[in-house]
This record gives sequence, C-alpha cells and structure tokens, in this order.
Amino acid sequence: MVLVKIGGGDAINLDGIAADIAALPGPVVVVHGANAIRDRLAADLGWEKRVVTSVSGYSSVYSDERAIDLLLMAYAGLRNKRLVERLLCHGRNAVGLTGLDGRLVSARRNTGIRVRQGDKTLLLRDLSGKPHAVNLPLMRLLLDNGYTPVLTVPLADEQGCAVNSENDEVVALLQAALNAEQVIELIEAPGLLLDPSDPSSVARSLDATDLKRLEERAEGRFKRKLLALGRLFDTTAPTVVMADGRTARPVADALAGAGTTITKRGAGR
Amino acid sequence: MVLVKIGGGDAINLDGIAADIAALPGPVVVVHGANAIRDRLAADLGWEKRVVTSVSGYSSVYSDERAIDLLLMAYAGLRNKRLVERLLCHGRNAVGLTGLDGRLVSARRNTGIRVRQGDKTLLLRDLSGKPHAVNLPLMRLLLDNGYTPVLTVPLADEQGCAVNSENDEVVALLQAALNAEQVIELIEAPGLLLDPSDPSSVARSLDATDLKRLEERAEGRFKRKLLALGRLFDTTAPTVVMADGRTARPVADALAGAGTTITKRGAGR
Repeated sequence: MVLVKIGGGDAINLDGIAADIAALPGPVVVVHGANAIRDRLAADLGWEKRVVTSVSGYSSVYSDERAIDLLLMAYAGLRNKRLVERLLCHGRNAVGLTGLDGRLVSARRNTGIRVRQGDKTLLLRDLSGKPHAVNLPLMRLLLDNGYTPVLTVPLADEQGCAVNSENDEVVALLQAALNAEQVIELIEAPGLLLDPSDPSSVARSLDATDLKRLEERAEGRFKRKLLALGRLFDTTAPTVVMADGRTARPVADALAGAGTTITKRGAGR
Repeated sequence: MVLVKIGGGDAINLDGIAADIAALPGPVVVVHGANAIRDRLAADLGWEKRVVTSVSGYSSVYSDERAIDLLLMAYAGLRNKRLVERLLCHGRNAVGLTGLDGRLVSARRNTGIRVRQGDKTLLLRDLSGKPHAVNLPLMRLLLDNGYTPVLTVPLADEQGCAVNSENDEVVALLQAALNAEQVIELIEAPGLLLDPSDPSSVARSLDATDLKRLEERAEGRFKRKLLALGRLFDTTAPTVVMADGRTARPVADALAGAGTTITKRGAGR
C-alpha cells in the first residue's frame, strides 16, 4: 500500500500526480490539502481569518463556522473532486471523502485557547481537533473493492461536528492504521530542505532519528511538519519520500529516488 | 428503502430533515440540491452565468469550468458536507458523494447546443449531461454496511469528467435502479401546486397519469419537474410525496400525509 500526501499549493501538478497514481499496481490512499484555494477564496469573499493570541503569547487561527465553510468549499469541494475527476480520467476509480463521511477520520475536539478579555481569562473553544481514530472497516471496504480513497479535512468530532485539523497529523494517523510501506509527500520544494531558505539544501537521505535533531533547530510550521514526519515512524517503518509535486511526473520521480528519502535504521527495508 | 430529495433553497430546514431521516428505521438514500448557495457564491465571487441562445431560440445556461467549480464548492462541498454533519450529529452514519465518486452516477455528455456566430452555425458543447447509470455495487456496499449515501451533482461523463445535470433526473434514475417504496421530495412550497402562483392550490393526492395532463399545461422549470416526477413511475410504482421542506419536521410530516401524494393506479399500494 502507498499513502500519498499532496500539498495544497497552486503549483502542484494534480494531473501528473493523478496519472502516476493511476499507473501504480497496488492499493493507494490519498490525502490532500487545498490551502492556496482556501486562502484565495477567503480573499475573494472578503472573509478575514480570525487570529487569537493566548495568554502565553501564542497566536493561532481561530476556526469558526466560516472557516469550516471555507474548508468545505475549497478542500472537500473544489480540490477533492477535481482530484477525483483527474484520477477517474486516468482510469483509477477514486472516491473523495472527508473525515466526516462515515466518520472516516474522527477527531478529539481541542479544549480551547486561554485568552485575556479585559481582566478575565476565558477559554475560547474553536472548531478544531486532533485526529484520533480511523474507520478502518470503511477504509477496507473501499480498498478491497478496488476504490482509491481520496481524503481531506474536515474531520468529525465526538458529536459528528466538522472540525479543522492538520492534514500531516491525519497522514500520521492513517500510517499507524494502514501500515503503508511507502509514504510519498508531494510538496512545493525539491525535497526536505536542511536550510528552508536554500532550495539547493535538499537532504538526499535521512534516518528517522535525524528528524528529531532537525526539529530542535526548526521553527513554526516547519517544526510542526518535522514532528508529524517523525510520527510516521512511531509504530511502523515505512519508506517516506518527500518530493517535488510540481514536476511532470511527481510520483514516478519520488519512486525513482527524487527528493528526500527517510527510513528507520535497522528496519530492514 | 426511502429516497429523499432535498431542494436547494435557503429556507429548507436541513437540521429538521436530518433528525427525521436519522429516526427512520430502514435504509435511506438522499439526493440534494444547493442552488441558493451556488447563486449567492457566484454573485459574491462576481462569476456571471453564461447564457447561450440556440438557433431555435431556446436559452440555456452554459456549464463551463467555472460553473463546475461553483457546483463543486456549493453542492459537493458546502451543502453536501453540512448535511452529512447534521446526519452524523443525529446518529445516522452518512457518506456524502457526488456522481464522480467511484463513478456512482455516470452521465452521457450532452451533444451540444447549435448557436449562430456571424453567418455560421456552431455546435457549442458544454459540461452537462444526462444521468444514465448508477454504480449499484458501490451503492449496495454502502447501504448493506449501514451507511446512508448523500448524493449530489456533478456526475461523471464517459471519460470521468465532471458534468452538470438535473438532480430531478438523478432521482428518477436512482428510483429505477433502487426501486424505493417511498420517494419524498422536500421543496419550498407546501406541496405540488396546481396553480404555481397560488400556495393554497396544493394537490392532496394525484395519480401518476395526472402528471401528464398537468405537464401539458405547465411551462419552464415546472414542466421539467413534472416530466421528471412522471419518470419515477416509468418502471416502478413508488409512493411519491412532495412536501414542505421548511417545517420543523419535514420528513415526518411528509410520511404523515402532508403535501401531495402521488401514486400509480392499480399498483396495490
């Protein structure tokens, strides 16, 4: 089984990826983002992001109903179905789903962010959560009958409500549940950059333990990305390739050794 | 089996419908529209409808790539997943799908509209089609495993491309494939109005043959609606109820005899 994560940037070559996935012989599960479409749609609609600052000084995006509406339009609607369409056209019978559908991926709702309002501290809960369970029978039902699941946010919280979540964490949860031999992450960079400001600093090959060291030096979203990558090796030992999603044949290139290959030492692969 | 068609108006009570569907004991298939959301989104984004006039003087909306993008955002994204969410919250394990997903509903692409351009007649093909086949094994797979399919446009054409279609025609195709005993159509009116301009002209009970007579007098979208209603009786003999989707308990009301009940004489139900 191959688990393919497709980044949500505009330069990602969806059709090339779909052609490559269609040509793979075995089962594939796809997870994708859509942040570029989401951000553009928000700008076009004049829907501003609400950013809140916690008492500890940490800023984060507040996922309100409108943020979920945007996810539904950009991720679940436009990007998901365009990807399904590309896969169908290349001969792969894809089924596009969010975590909500059949509770395919459930989340635990986040407890909230402590914010200051006047002289009071309030706990502000938004519509976000951490992925915590995969509906494996539904996943198996689709895979065993020849369908290729194409997944994206939102997820379903304990009550069944839509919540936002990090797609990287969804991928880590799926890896633990499905134990894919290959995880391919297609991004808008030639691979994992040792220096994020230098496109020529692509790591060719890393051991899972290297991720921890890189993470200590990293900041912001890149730190979070490394943390999620590290989690892929928590219970399983896949071959993880981070490769360029902008080339003519992104998946074929990744399988041929392009980008960064991460393995777990002594895992025998 | 109950087939529920939910209109795409803003006044439709989605949560009440979801609560009612969740309370039904047997299998349910849902088809829904989202025209109000689509039209508002198009207006907010400044995406104008392209209307073309055929050589025979008939005007129709031209479904271009942007029209499909709007469908994907409004129908497949926002409305479909919000409905799935409401169903989950009420305890029904719903799976939201378009015709694209697993080629659940395939369409034959329309041949095109003959238009005049200068002194030439051109055949203008858009991204629209007629539903012609249901992926019954996938539908059965979901139903037999306790899932409630929630369907909407677009459909998949012969190549797997997204095409627009009439939801009423999708319902007629599904009825032929699934042979549901009950078809419930929830609209923004108290039932089928014998005079569309008079809300008090609700027909209480009609025979399928009455639809033909009404159709002869009707015009525009209402004529098309009656034609699609008539098709529900082509190969099967369901009880069709057209009822108000704006009440507190729309499905319960419909099953209790609200709105218009249409049956086929001599069908023994």
